[in-house]
Amino acid sequence: MQNKPANTELERYALELGRCARLAGRELALASGSVKDRCIAQLSGLLRARTGDLVAANERDIAAAHQSGLTTAQIDRLRLTSGRIESMVRGLDDIIRLPDPVAEIIDRTVRPNGLMIEKVRVPLGVVFFIYEARPNVTTDAAALCLKSGNAVILRGGKEAMHSNRAIQALIRESLANCGLADHAVQMVDNPARELVDHLLHLSEYIDLVVPRGGEGLIRRVAAQAKMPVMKHYQGICHVYVHEAADSEMARRVILNAKCQRPAMCNAAESLLVDRAIARDFLPSALAALRDAGVELRGCPETQEIAPGVRAATEQDYATEYLDLKLSVRVVANLDEAVDHITRFGSAHTDAIITSDAAAASQFARRVDSAAVMINASTRFNDGGEFGLGAEIGISTDKYHARGPCGLRELTSYKYVVRGAGQVRNA
Amino acid sequence: MQNKPANTELERYALELGRCARLAGRELALASGSVKDRCIAQLSGLLRARTGDLVAANERDIAAAHQSGLTTAQIDRLRLTSGRIESMVRGLDDIIRLPDPVAEIIDRTVRPNGLMIEKVRVPLGVVFFIYEARPNVTTDAAALCLKSGNAVILRGGKEAMHSNRAIQALIRESLANCGLADHAVQMVDNPARELVDHLLHLSEYIDLVVPRGGEGLIRRVAAQAKMPVMKHYQGICHVYVHEAADSEMARRVILNAKCQRPAMCNAAESLLVDRAIARDFLPSALAALRDAGVELRGCPETQEIAPGVRAATEQDYATEYLDLKLSVRVVANLDEAVDHITRFGSAHTDAIITSDAAAASQFARRVDSAAVMINASTRFNDGGEFGLGAEIGISTDKYHARGPCGLRELTSYKYVVRGAGQVRNA
Repeated sequence: MQNKPANTELERYALELGRCARLAGRELALASGSVKDRCIAQLSGLLRARTGDLVAANERDIAAAHQSGLTTAQIDRLRLTSGRIESMVRGLDDIIRLPDPVAEIIDRTVRPNGLMIEKVRVPLGVVFFIYEARPNVTTDAAALCLKSGNAVILRGGKEAMHSNRAIQALIRESLANCGLADHAVQMVDNPARELVDHLLHLSEYIDLVVPRGGEGLIRRVAAQAKMPVMKHYQGICHVYVHEAADSEMARRVILNAKCQRPAMCNAAESLLVDRAIARDFLPSALAALRDAGVELRGCPETQEIAPGVRAATEQDYATEYLDLKLSVRVVANLDEAVDHITRFGSAHTDAIITSDAAAASQFARRVDSAAVMINASTRFNDGGEFGLGAEIGISTDKYHARGPCGLRELTSYKYVVRGAGQVRNA
Repeated sequence: MQNKPANTELERYALELGRCARLAGRELALASGSVKDRCIAQLSGLLRARTGDLVAANERDIAAAHQSGLTTAQIDRLRLTSGRIESMVRGLDDIIRLPDPVAEIIDRTVRPNGLMIEKVRVPLGVVFFIYEARPNVTTDAAALCLKSGNAVILRGGKEAMHSNRAIQALIRESLANCGLADHAVQMVDNPARELVDHLLHLSEYIDLVVPRGGEGLIRRVAAQAKMPVMKHYQGICHVYVHEAADSEMARRVILNAKCQRPAMCNAAESLLVDRAIARDFLPSALAALRDAGVELRGCPETQEIAPGVRAATEQDYATEYLDLKLSVRVVANLDEAVDHITRFGSAHTDAIITSDAAAASQFARRVDSAAVMINASTRFNDGGEFGLGAEIGISTDKYHARGPCGLRELTSYKYVVRGAGQVRNA
């Protein structure tokens, strides 16, 4: 970009955001852990103190959302209640308690020639975070980036504009009070998609883009971006009930994986059952799922065992319902289950239920997903549940970070080599 | 790609390479360390046993290279002597001695709910390696990918075609003898650049591309690739002589960093000297560099101190000479040195020479490069010198791997979670 004139307003705005973020990132990379924590604590305090203002700003978004016909679920995600603000506060307090990842010595070796080689954790630099119209995500993302020493450019769903502006005012106040760079956290204050496109080209100023939201948005971002993208497209998660499964455990896990929060990416979308136990397991398990309101789509064998189940198409196996719907398939054995998951899965989270340790190990080795669960619900693929703290997203890629991405996954490293004048001879 | 018909021969060939690599990679990911080591040992043995054949094949490349007017340096890199084949053998034997990275448990935690969470190292999948006409690189790259469990598609410089085909025959023989997948190591046997372009679009089959060679090639690959690229564009490496430097050490380090192998990416291209010591340090240091055949280009102060030095332009400071040339600049202090490196450097390797520990730490924190050297030559930024073993390249990116990239850097990880039927309640 540097050789082309910024020929539009939006391009100029994008360049300005990028340049300011790069400079702020350089400052922030050197900030001490205590200053960063103090800033997050300030923000936490301000959220509590200004809850009324935030709710009022949010009401403007909610009113506009009703006007523009958002769904009830969308409006629910958009809403800031005092309870939700309280959990934003708790989220920030949790991040404060996590160790500062920056400047951590990851590894240290002394070479035969006396050189001491340290691998030191450093921030990535500048993160561009694109996310849904969920204003409660704003503070979490800002705090994760701040604490990991990264400047961030926030681009929330436009329906949350008033709420996000109100939150951004508190973030700026906290940064200023702690002497941190103004532009450490910037917000894109223009809903134009072209602006996002311009930002996605600024690889010299932005080191990582993290898109969240619908698959279409994420694919568009990944196709445009000239910098790395931390993402998952889909969560087509499977629960495979192996012939050596404890049926009661299997029923409990699939119910939880499907029903506890069906709109989450780590909810199950497909149930695979070994033929050897299908007649024993499926009738009661499917009845329990139906009782929980789940609409079932099954293979011919499933339909034969449990009459009334609608036929599953190939498309069903490839669909992330994000809803109380489940595809069900009887498989010959572990091989066929692994093949099905390899073909239809999205490398997010897949579970096996079995009391056979060898089968569990086989499954864990051969299923190429970010997380493989053995006798546990797919819903556990989550930064908090894994003990990593808050997460900015879950990655299904293999490059850099895989699975839940928290503070550490927002960092890189550098080598620092200390010598006494050593030179190289060969 | 999957929805578009393969409408050209080359596109079909690319798809075939990609599909075969993906299937071979799945098999290879599950291969035991001992089988992989046995295969590399076979190859090592075959290189020795067939040295005569390899040299003969190489002679055809050398003859063609003379015809097509390659430079002496290019022809030297292309040549396979029995001595060079012997060092290929030693390179393979070194890789055999490295631990198998695959299936290593990187981290293990037990959560309060009893879930045991393991972070397990896994291969990336399929690597596409594009490299210079240096046939000795072929075996190293094949062995690194094989040992890290990755299928690889090799695309060497076309001038090395006969040599590479002869090496590939030995690789296939080794794979077959050990029962490993035929397509674990494939070679692109068509020099068309369009074929490379097609391969760079196959993100569903290729997980990483590693380009080596000139900056132009690497930029073209990075612009085209739909998958991650492990790379550095340039190595504009600095040696900064701080006012508290030991002059004798500084002279030794800059001579080594510039002259020992000037065509390497970790050779120094710029010397920065604090004003306070410039009059003492520069005359003898520059005389020693000139005696070693180095052509100097200096700032006005350098020119005043050392008459006869040609003027350095801004372009000089931004140039990777890869030759016996050096730009020299007098700076006010550490701040100015860091600013210069931030502006003109390439985030590869930068050194400070100082006996002041605080200055060294400042420099190490503020210089945002893959490796920062304190009182040591820039030439040490190398997998072997860092104790990582052989490397497939050096990365200046921050995402995934930075610095020398060996076996570990060619891997990802997965989470394997073992439970006893746990479900999630919140």
